[in-house]
Amino acid sequence: MKDLIDDVFVAAFDNSDLAPMEDQARLDLGMLAAAGDRLAFTTDAVVVDPLFFPGGDIGKLAVCGTINDLAVGGAIPLYLSCAAIIEEGTSVELLRKVAQSMAHSAQLAGVRIVTGDTKVVPRGACDKLFITASGLGVIPKGVQLNAHAARPGDVVLVNGLLGEHGAAILAARGEMALDCTIESDCAPLHELVAALLARAPGVRCLRDATRGGIATVLNEIAQASHVGIEIDEAQCPMREQVRGFCEILGLDPLYLANEGKLVAIVAPEDADAALTALQAHPLGAEARIVGRVTELEPGRVVMRTLLGGHRIVDMLVGEQLPRIC
Amino acid sequence: MKDLIDDVFVAAFDNSDLAPMEDQARLDLGMLAAAGDRLAFTTDAVVVDPLFFPGGDIGKLAVCGTINDLAVGGAIPLYLSCAAIIEEGTSVELLRKVAQSMAHSAQLAGVRIVTGDTKVVPRGACDKLFITASGLGVIPKGVQLNAHAARPGDVVLVNGLLGEHGAAILAARGEMALDCTIESDCAPLHELVAALLARAPGVRCLRDATRGGIATVLNEIAQASHVGIEIDEAQCPMREQVRGFCEILGLDPLYLANEGKLVAIVAPEDADAALTALQAHPLGAEARIVGRVTELEPGRVVMRTLLGGHRIVDMLVGEQLPRIC
Repeated sequence: MKDLIDDVFVAAFDNSDLAPMEDQARLDLGMLAAAGDRLAFTTDAVVVDPLFFPGGDIGKLAVCGTINDLAVGGAIPLYLSCAAIIEEGTSVELLRKVAQSMAHSAQLAGVRIVTGDTKVVPRGACDKLFITASGLGVIPKGVQLNAHAARPGDVVLVNGLLGEHGAAILAARGEMALDCTIESDCAPLHELVAALLARAPGVRCLRDATRGGIATVLNEIAQASHVGIEIDEAQCPMREQVRGFCEILGLDPLYLANEGKLVAIVAPEDADAALTALQAHPLGAEARIVGRVTELEPGRVVMRTLLGGHRIVDMLVGEQLPRIC
Repeated sequence: MKDLIDDVFVAAFDNSDLAPMEDQARLDLGMLAAAGDRLAFTTDAVVVDPLFFPGGDIGKLAVCGTINDLAVGGAIPLYLSCAAIIEEGTSVELLRKVAQSMAHSAQLAGVRIVTGDTKVVPRGACDKLFITASGLGVIPKGVQLNAHAARPGDVVLVNGLLGEHGAAILAARGEMALDCTIESDCAPLHELVAALLARAPGVRCLRDATRGGIATVLNEIAQASHVGIEIDEAQCPMREQVRGFCEILGLDPLYLANEGKLVAIVAPEDADAALTALQAHPLGAEARIVGRVTELEPGRVVMRTLLGGHRIVDMLVGEQLPRIC
């Protein structure tokens, strides 16, 4: 079983740095140091249920999620690891599909899966398959993106339609019996980020709006930077179908997970350049300015509603949706 | 729940590089490139059952296992990530103990846990807690350790008593109703490796003998290097209790997992220096030369038995013991 699984993953990730006979990948430090002055290092445990959903699967999600955690730090993503925890009895065909999806996603994004581990646990000790991906990237000299760098007057942008990953996963679970064609937005954002940073040096902070949606990310930035953030509901881009889906289920779409959306905090003089750069990229075609950073109520996010009133967009209290990513 | 868990892990790993407000750790590349010319990168999913056992716990095991995967490549381990998958309902007290054990093990070993992720899954979707640790280290210039570098005439060393992790885990499961005081040998080996490489430049290959024990590691080396390996049963260091434990259960101790033992393949002229260097370190006090590399039967491991005969030590066929690490 173990050999078979190793074969599945090693074969899918076939590349020269993935030395299956060694316990570690060995990467040229001179090449890394030539690309930037800081190494970015991140890890992402993916426990999504179901494993396959419209727009993606656990493998694509692990690769894209890890790439995005690097990209929002301004890093060029280069290398990934893949650790799979597999329930005994999971079909090799399923594992092969996931491994191939990871390999394909990595190849499209120009990153390489260079080391891995697989563990098989008895039936019932885990639910089919969990994947933990860690990532390495290089941050070019001079790039400084920080959650504490937002200042009053900055503008808040998003790169597209919100809430689609969360809605797609919920719909795919089939518990709602809703007829729904929403696909996950799962995508690697590093090329979009590179295009944005090239055109708009006044970008102060980027965050990918995964678990907890843009509401959570904006709260984290407001707290880290000790600023207020005001967003405009009318400007938040969203498919009618997602809005309707949320109404039926009583969910707030601002808290729905995304896997291909980021929030950008940009100095006001670079706001137009940032918007133009985002919209020029396929993953930013629906980009919008959704709000601004204020001096009022530091640490707090406020939304101007469609009806013209204001409401506080708080950190999520209580449990998030489990196994959304 | 998520906040609580983040607090548990972030508080335990408290250090300046673990930027809890950012999605990635940022590490100085100049400092890394000054320490060596290659970055070593590894990942280890730990699903051990039970979580606590004599001599260690899942946290210590994740830290030491990842350090050892770096160390056997000749790397100086520096940074770790920690991704925890947690079953809903697992007590915060248990998580705190594991996080503190990880922090303590990392601190003792001089490595830092700089990034992490936690995911909570519903009851029944995983068995309490799985931890995946990834590791980064730097390989100093000139260090070249490779599984394909063994040559006929080389000697085979181990740094101490074999099979104790595997025996300790099996005993701790309590299914055998055996009265047994064996403790896991779980320990970080990087300082031992550094001492060894400093004294014995003729070390050609190191492997930590985890899952599948030294039998598996020796087979991998024999196959990668296209050489035969002959070991001497009388020289394999082992506690009487482990030997007895294996006899009762019908297990072969050469296949039992270790978590603080390595196999070293060393050029003959450096064999004595290597043995002296290992024995001078607390984790190598029981080091022994256990065999040698031959030209006979490339890819095959043969053992001279206590009775003077020879038997083939094959790759493990069939299932390994699940959840041993």
